[in-house]
Amino acid sequence: MNDTARVFGLHAVRAVLRRDPARVVQLSLAGQRDDARSAEIESLARQAGVALRRVDAQTLSKLAGDGVHQGVVAEVRPMPPWREDDLLEALRETPAPLVLVLDGVQDPHNLGACLRTADACGALAVVVPKDRAAPLNATARKVAAGAAETTPVVVVVNLARTLKLLKEAGLWVVGAAGEAPKLASEADLKGPLAIVMGAEGHGLRQLTRQHCDFLVRLPQLGAVESLNVSVATGMLLYEVLRQRLSG
Amino acid sequence: MNDTARVFGLHAVRAVLRRDPARVVQLSLAGQRDDARSAEIESLARQAGVALRRVDAQTLSKLAGDGVHQGVVAEVRPMPPWREDDLLEALRETPAPLVLVLDGVQDPHNLGACLRTADACGALAVVVPKDRAAPLNATARKVAAGAAETTPVVVVVNLARTLKLLKEAGLWVVGAAGEAPKLASEADLKGPLAIVMGAEGHGLRQLTRQHCDFLVRLPQLGAVESLNVSVATGMLLYEVLRQRLSG
Repeated sequence: MNDTARVFGLHAVRAVLRRDPARVVQLSLAGQRDDARSAEIESLARQAGVALRRVDAQTLSKLAGDGVHQGVVAEVRPMPPWREDDLLEALRETPAPLVLVLDGVQDPHNLGACLRTADACGALAVVVPKDRAAPLNATARKVAAGAAETTPVVVVVNLARTLKLLKEAGLWVVGAAGEAPKLASEADLKGPLAIVMGAEGHGLRQLTRQHCDFLVRLPQLGAVESLNVSVATGMLLYEVLRQRLSG
Repeated sequence: MNDTARVFGLHAVRAVLRRDPARVVQLSLAGQRDDARSAEIESLARQAGVALRRVDAQTLSKLAGDGVHQGVVAEVRPMPPWREDDLLEALRETPAPLVLVLDGVQDPHNLGACLRTADACGALAVVVPKDRAAPLNATARKVAAGAAETTPVVVVVNLARTLKLLKEAGLWVVGAAGEAPKLASEADLKGPLAIVMGAEGHGLRQLTRQHCDFLVRLPQLGAVESLNVSVATGMLLYEVLRQRLSG
């Protein structure tokens, strides 16, 4: 048996109860909570046949660590990684999907941080190559603050091939590169999209770059040359959301 | 004597040589580099009376750790923290200044990451309260990847008072809050600005919130409730840059 992981917060727990209730091993709800959102969690748990226990605030805080638990914590079996086929199937079912591709992010902290951001920005999945990439280990899961249990990670053997499949599925493949002629805000990022981020300090590999439809850059003004990859990811995904929300 | 810190990359080293060459203890340049930008570093060093040594690529990589050194690493005395007066003086000399205020960010990793992002986005300084905040320690400096040596940190005793002084200096004080009615992209962030970020998992304190001119929120779509504070800071500062660059 794998170790379990923790998901906290109303939105995240609701997501797991809806998508994959069989993964929930234990569900803890604040004893004193009695609002509409807690009632919804209770109702979802009942429908899915998931047992629920009422606990005090202290127990919840201990379970959630630093996380904002909002009165609910679920202990879940880790999300199994997706295969490429799972991703392609999900793409067919999602209008204007957003996929994050990490080309060789080596640091589990950065992988976890990117996962958390991808989740917050509504990404469908995060694609990472099997080699030269950080594993989705305990550190990455902790930094992801629950996102590793709600946003699937697709580990692929041949990243260039996957980028081709994403294009065939109708996505624009957009790479982040400091020397790109266009700012991200000058590109149209509203359609089906894969955002490709390079490794810390190295950027995109040549082969990855060749498989991008176009490259965009982020504005930078300061003294330090590069942004942390998880912050750069956040900025780019923010730009995608901004464009999509502005209609 | 304090320990020294390392600054790497052409832009960052150039910034220190221009602003405060007396802080440079040792300057190392790649032996084989002979381009225009290296020549500029050499010329700045000569003008400032800073000795320069030529080293091989391996030595530079060792000095820079994970950092992108671009052939140059400087060993510098740490930047002394600014007092409130230093900040107010710098504000008078800067057109449309951008100041980042961290209201009780507790984790040195997050402080370092915010400093790095603030620097990359051209922030004039980062303001932190003396109490309930992460110290600018070795961890924070390392994560800041050199930005702690180029972007000043202002430690203040009374944050509410400082926000008042920033307003009197003509800045708009804008707080980030999930429940704000306006998206950041719907607000005008082009003028002189202080962006105020709350603590991890808690948001802005009530008193801090009262001293903001207005609040803005970031779009969020995913399952996990909150963004990491350094990623949220990156998104907001990106939005400021985007607006300013779009004229």
